[in-house]
Amino acid sequence: MPPEKSKTKLRVRYSETDQMGTFYNSRALEWFEVGRTDWLRKAGIPYAEMETRGALLPLVEAHVEYHGRARYDDELEIVTNAHMAGKARMRFEIAIAHITGERVASGYTVHAIVNGEGKPIRPPAWLVDAME
Amino acid sequence: MPPEKSKTKLRVRYSETDQMGTFYNSRALEWFEVGRTDWLRKAGIPYAEMETRGALLPLVEAHVEYHGRARYDDELEIVTNAHMAGKARMRFEIAIAHITGERVASGYTVHAIVNGEGKPIRPPAWLVDAME
Amino acid sequence: MPPEKSKTKLRVRYSETDQMGTFYNSRALEWFEVGRTDWLRKAGIPYAEMETRGALLPLVEAHVEYHGRARYDDELEIVTNAHMAGKARMRFEIAIAHITGERVASGYTVHAIVNGEGKPIRPPAWLVDAME
Amino acid sequence: MPPEKSKTKLRVRYSETDQMGTFYNSRALEWFEVGRTDWLRKAGIPYAEMETRGALLPLVEAHVEYHGRARYDDELEIVTNAHMAGKARMRFEIAIAHITGERVASGYTVHAIVNGEGKPIRPPAWLVDAME
Repeated sequence: MPPEKSKTKLRVRYSETDQMGTFYNSRALEWFEVGRTDWLRKAGIPYAEMETRGALLPLVEAHVEYHGRARYDDELEIVTNAHMAGKARMRFEIAIAHITGERVASGYTVHAIVNGEGKPIRPPAWLVDAME
Repeated sequence: MPPEKSKTKLRVRYSETDQMGTFYNSRALEWFEVGRTDWLRKAGIPYAEMETRGALLPLVEAHVEYHGRARYDDELEIVTNAHMAGKARMRFEIAIAHITGERVASGYTVHAIVNGEGKPIRPPAWLVDAME
Repeated sequence: MPPEKSKTKLRVRYSETDQMGTFYNSRALEWFEVGRTDWLRKAGIPYAEMETRGALLPLVEAHVEYHGRARYDDELEIVTNAHMAGKARMRFEIAIAHITGERVASGYTVHAIVNGEGKPIRPPAWLVDAME
Repeated sequence: MPPEKSKTKLRVRYSETDQMGTFYNSRALEWFEVGRTDWLRKAGIPYAEMETRGALLPLVEAHVEYHGRARYDDELEIVTNAHMAGKARMRFEIAIAHITGERVASGYTVHAIVNGEGKPIRPPAWLVDAME
């Protein structure tokens, strides 16, 4: 049974701010990964375990849109969803907002599905099942 | 009433690992800051509010000892304590361990106490009170 | 006179690797910024000076495609180009490759042009000139 | 022949600033590593090659003192020196300053010397020689 949408909370760290007083732009990709990690755990397949099962998800594409500011110690919520992108790739849709609902950033990441040697593999049933 | 020791949990992010397979060494200082932030919040003086009250805590010294590995998605606990260091500085003692108790890193940070213009100030009573 | 394409070299830092042994994905956005900084400097308008002139370039969109691995201490070259995107936005095109030519990552960033208060402004002539 | 003191230049990246407008404190440890990498390369033993030779230098202790601010795009110089610390450990002394000479941060890192399995080894002659 997949988590329809996984929701994860985090607080903006001081190390994640920049001199404009908001979060530095690359942090969005780090928070996207926090969302993916949480989605996978809730789907019953923690990423660390995926390696053991012989499936890795290297990133092939990432897209971010920036909607608003987030300051140090602000509490944010990451909403993550996942589905197959064609027959061989996996796509995560991620939205980050303040807990008040005000949007911060959103986007997606596309991942190849490969084995431990980096060769593309047919998506394992347990992974496809987690997305449906 | 001060928090005798503040305890904070976090999970190691993929972005915090390095090619040795454990956390990259500078993350310890970022986690120390997570501990300080949490200590201050529990002491009733969130750092964001300190600025409003006219007191900042720039770092003047940091020390870290590395005891063991921590891998991606491992759950860690940060234990933070604070006290005055002499009459003009504040010192945080921080220990990071696995939730099983196995040690990861420990150390301290020393902070000046300054106003919005960066001038040293006498430690405000509300800050000293939080430490005792 | 604009730099048609700015070229910048950097070496992959240990802090930029992750446990897969290549660079962590968000570093691409940090390297994109290294490219932008260098493009602006070569165009005669260092970003720090732009603030003084009353123009800031907050990021509104970022896109990255990942082509290949880059390991610790590998030397990379960032090629950056810039042009207007419509009448009100600026777009940087960025490609990162090994000095052997092998591709690492490429993409673009789109920026609003705002004043010190965050209000959109008409692109200043000195900025438009730098792109042509 | 060892590099008596290795000197390395870098520019502060936007991603390395924080909302105080100076570099975030953990960047000092990342810059220390840039200094170590450069020292080792100049000593003829690039770190990547050390792994091949069967010697790794995991960090066991780090100390930083913060002396002054460094802003986005400031050019800094890292001066690095290395020597044995007792019979089994290596110590790097590192100082970071503006190119004007104004100090930014200084400190040291202490490293164990281990083989690929993480077991302490006797310091190889080629490493000891590089320090003298």
